[in-house]
Amino acid sequence: MINVPKQLDSEHQQQIIEQIKELLKKQALVENVLSQQEGSSDRAELVQTVLKRKHEAELGDLVNHLHPADIAFILESLPSEDRIKIWNAAHADHDGDILLEVDDWVREELIAEMDQDDILAATEDLDADELADLIPDLPPEVVVELQKSMSDEEREQLRSALGYPEGTVGAIMDFEVVRVREDVTLEVVLRYLRMLGELPEHTDQLFVVDRNNKLKGVLSLSSLLVNDSEKSVTEVMQTDYLSLKAEAKDSKAASAFERYDLVSAPVIDEEQTLIGRVTITDIVDVIREDSNEHALSQAGLQEEDIFVPIRRAIPNRAPWLLINLITASIASVVASRFEGTVSHIVILAFLMSIVAGIGGNSGNQTMTMVIRALAVGRVNQKNARTLLRRELFVTSCVGLGGSLIAGTFAWIFSGSIKIALVMAAAMVLNMQLGATLGVLIPMIRDRFNKDPALGSSVLLTFATDSLGFFIFLGLATIFLM
Amino acid sequence: MINVPKQLDSEHQQQIIEQIKELLKKQALVENVLSQQEGSSDRAELVQTVLKRKHEAELGDLVNHLHPADIAFILESLPSEDRIKIWNAAHADHDGDILLEVDDWVREELIAEMDQDDILAATEDLDADELADLIPDLPPEVVVELQKSMSDEEREQLRSALGYPEGTVGAIMDFEVVRVREDVTLEVVLRYLRMLGELPEHTDQLFVVDRNNKLKGVLSLSSLLVNDSEKSVTEVMQTDYLSLKAEAKDSKAASAFERYDLVSAPVIDEEQTLIGRVTITDIVDVIREDSNEHALSQAGLQEEDIFVPIRRAIPNRAPWLLINLITASIASVVASRFEGTVSHIVILAFLMSIVAGIGGNSGNQTMTMVIRALAVGRVNQKNARTLLRRELFVTSCVGLGGSLIAGTFAWIFSGSIKIALVMAAAMVLNMQLGATLGVLIPMIRDRFNKDPALGSSVLLTFATDSLGFFIFLGLATIFLM
Repeated sequence: MINVPKQLDSEHQQQIIEQIKELLKKQALVENVLSQQEGSSDRAELVQTVLKRKHEAELGDLVNHLHPADIAFILESLPSEDRIKIWNAAHADHDGDILLEVDDWVREELIAEMDQDDILAATEDLDADELADLIPDLPPEVVVELQKSMSDEEREQLRSALGYPEGTVGAIMDFEVVRVREDVTLEVVLRYLRMLGELPEHTDQLFVVDRNNKLKGVLSLSSLLVNDSEKSVTEVMQTDYLSLKAEAKDSKAASAFERYDLVSAPVIDEEQTLIGRVTITDIVDVIREDSNEHALSQAGLQEEDIFVPIRRAIPNRAPWLLINLITASIASVVASRFEGTVSHIVILAFLMSIVAGIGGNSGNQTMTMVIRALAVGRVNQKNARTLLRRELFVTSCVGLGGSLIAGTFAWIFSGSIKIALVMAAAMVLNMQLGATLGVLIPMIRDRFNKDPALGSSVLLTFATDSLGFFIFLGLATIFLM
Repeated sequence: MINVPKQLDSEHQQQIIEQIKELLKKQALVENVLSQQEGSSDRAELVQTVLKRKHEAELGDLVNHLHPADIAFILESLPSEDRIKIWNAAHADHDGDILLEVDDWVREELIAEMDQDDILAATEDLDADELADLIPDLPPEVVVELQKSMSDEEREQLRSALGYPEGTVGAIMDFEVVRVREDVTLEVVLRYLRMLGELPEHTDQLFVVDRNNKLKGVLSLSSLLVNDSEKSVTEVMQTDYLSLKAEAKDSKAASAFERYDLVSAPVIDEEQTLIGRVTITDIVDVIREDSNEHALSQAGLQEEDIFVPIRRAIPNRAPWLLINLITASIASVVASRFEGTVSHIVILAFLMSIVAGIGGNSGNQTMTMVIRALAVGRVNQKNARTLLRRELFVTSCVGLGGSLIAGTFAWIFSGSIKIALVMAAAMVLNMQLGATLGVLIPMIRDRFNKDPALGSSVLLTFATDSLGFFIFLGLATIFLM
């Protein structure tokens, strides 16, 4: 591990970013001054060149003392133009690691800045699973070139890594497993490790395989260290371990890592053959991405970052707002069926927006709970009915209390007890509707293997708006006309 | 690690839960039959006793083959009555681990079922940091009893663990550090580890300290294994490592673990004295909890689970809905100022609810992005201005497109080009308002060290509703009256 900051000191990091910005400003100033003096003297040109070199050296110094993950963070936080400058200042040795760390949209930009040789140099030291992550963004001719320089085994691993779709264990596994045989002593294993000279990162266990590469057990570094080296691997290894299938969902693997507090787990195929491993660091990324996706997709957004170029942000935001616009228009059309009722008592137009809003908010509370429970596997198609009953009951209790307050408000506001009763009744009913849909929308989407959160908020609001109008105005037409 | 399922097989788990439910049903049936026969014969009583024993034995068999984390999951998924039965069926050896795994509300229920001896037996093998997590839920007399049986060192650790507030590194750290001296050879370290006989879970590195317990470096198990055992610790240890302060926020520690791919990190005090360590499994819990809290608090909810008792769910849901009700009422009052305008053209009442809704949804999209960016530290008070400009621009682009559609709809709906223009203008303005507040509300809450997500959605909707009404009806009053 290189250049990990000694202290958890975000101020220090912020200072470095400020220093970098300061340098970039100075550089821009120098360039600016010179471009204004058209026929500049040789001397001025010299001064400029010297200054530029100096700034570049300072920049390189600052940047290259950082961990690649920190450089990636800074690259993501800067505007395009500055980003390229920092990228050029970063030492070529770090390029591969930085490319792995940055978000997709930044990666594309950086790769576009590199020529074929740069890319080859940056990627030659990467492992097959890391390469597989980069390949979609690399120019095809570079990929061909890269494959030429690989061993047969690496090529095979790369093919295997590329074969698994995103969201599976296969897509996050790596191939850096240390294999040992079961019939040797720990002493032999210890000698073997010393011969290797280095263990893959996050190795907490070795994998015990037979001559056909079938997984027989796992040998933790701890038990290797605390046991008598005369003992055999068979005596010490664990046979009670969790293994993953490459086709399994990565979110299931994440739940297992969380539940059983794992650091790594072997990946095997149908024949129990060891093909790779998954480590906790990949799992942490899965957990973080899942939670981000949930938060975003509920607001009708796809993966977007606050610094994504604007031309990308717009198509990301617009679709669900468009749907929202259409659904709200439909809701208005529903309300317009009751034009007579509304024009009769204008006050109703205001009260009904309260009914619509509270139904939406209450439904959203239920939905948030259900989406989360689906994510951790606490809810499934079997206990949906129990859940629905429970939510209806909770909502009734909250709704009855709320409708008392709302009715009182409507009474004061309108002076009519009848309007107050209509208001209270409509509110309870619309909240029930919100709760029902708050359970059903995510459950049904999940049933059909869709992301339960995606746009669910917009859909729910549509229903509680238009049906809220319908319930309120329907009741008003019956009891007030 | 005990009883980790060999395969990631949620169906298998589901089957076990079904089997358990089946058994519970049978048990209930037997009890039921007997309670109906008042003066039952000795023979019938005998049959019942035998059946009950058999069911209990089967239940115990099923439950005790599971990992404590799985038992905890099942306990959380069952109704109260069945939960207690499973709890009684679980082997006392697992009690402590299960108590650590279950959610707070289940834990309280389970502890209420135990007598003092049960609790002492369950907790005696726990480490100080684990005990610290349980202590708030234990009866005070048990705590006194527990402390009596502890060594001075353990008591000191417990005091230290209890001293750090939730959300700090101190509250998640444990004390299971393996210390070694820098002036010895690796051979000595290896012998020391063999003497220990066991390493704490998730040990990936040993901590190198001087005689005053000051941290000098870290020695990874990997480098211990691959290096020549003649070498000294000083030669092999890393001095370039991240250490945490016990008072630091746990979410900052989580970011560091994620960014630098750590498995464990030492916790030190101001004088560089080693006081404990944090492992990735604690960090995974922090990440998961943070993302849950974010999702829930945005909908105005506190920590609640889908199986929490209903009497607890209601007070959790009601407050924000009440606030929503009050704010919506205020919005109606705002609209009622324009009663003349609305009664003039009833259609406006429907169109304005579209304007209010779309402003709220668009603002929510912005807010979701900002809250996430705040969480990962991508946004701070310094770049707030840039961010606001960016969001206003994106929203303008989306808004102009949307207002064309909305205007056309209003035109068809009302037949008036003036209304269409008012509609389009009000929509663009209200979306700008939503974007501005979507940036400002979380930023300001963050500035004052409040959770940026908590109830932010309700607040935003209030503003876009009431000001949306105001903008729309204001424009309508000016241009249509």
